[in-house]
Amino acid sequence: MSQTRTYTVTGMTCSHCVTSVLEEVGEVPGVTGVDVDLAGGRVVVTAEAPIDDDAVAAAVEEAGYRLENSGSSS
Amino acid sequence: MSQTRTYTVTGMTCSHCVTSVLEEVGEVPGVTGVDVDLAGGRVVVTAEAPIDDDAVAAAVEEAGYRLENSGSSS
Repeated sequence: MSQTRTYTVTGMTCSHCVTSVLEEVGEVPGVTGVDVDLAGGRVVVTAEAPIDDDAVAAAVEEAGYRLENSGSSS
Repeated sequence: MSQTRTYTVTGMTCSHCVTSVLEEVGEVPGVTGVDVDLAGGRVVVTAEAPIDDDAVAAAVEEAGYRLENSGSSS
């Protein structure tokens, strides 16, 4: 079953930030979709399996940004 | 204004294919979201600007797969 979680990410300022986040979060195992709302500082992640918040946090940090929360289901 | 286009992609068989497509299509300039439906062979792309079908096709090929159509608005 697919699951969707929404994260708040700080520090994204331009389309290059969006690209980096898409790239890194897209590499998290099981993830099938990533949508970044730059203006709202939100990243919506969809996956086929339960989403590993720590893996998403690590991917966002790899991209150069930080999660503000540990994600909420939506 | 954000725009969404749906593409049919052949050849994706597993979650590694999904990861590759997310990564490559996520690098297309202006793209803010990528969702891959492995079972349905569909890739849904969202962007802030008009989406360049050729750039999406090139990214999908870079990932190792092929677009079956040139995309449809949705």
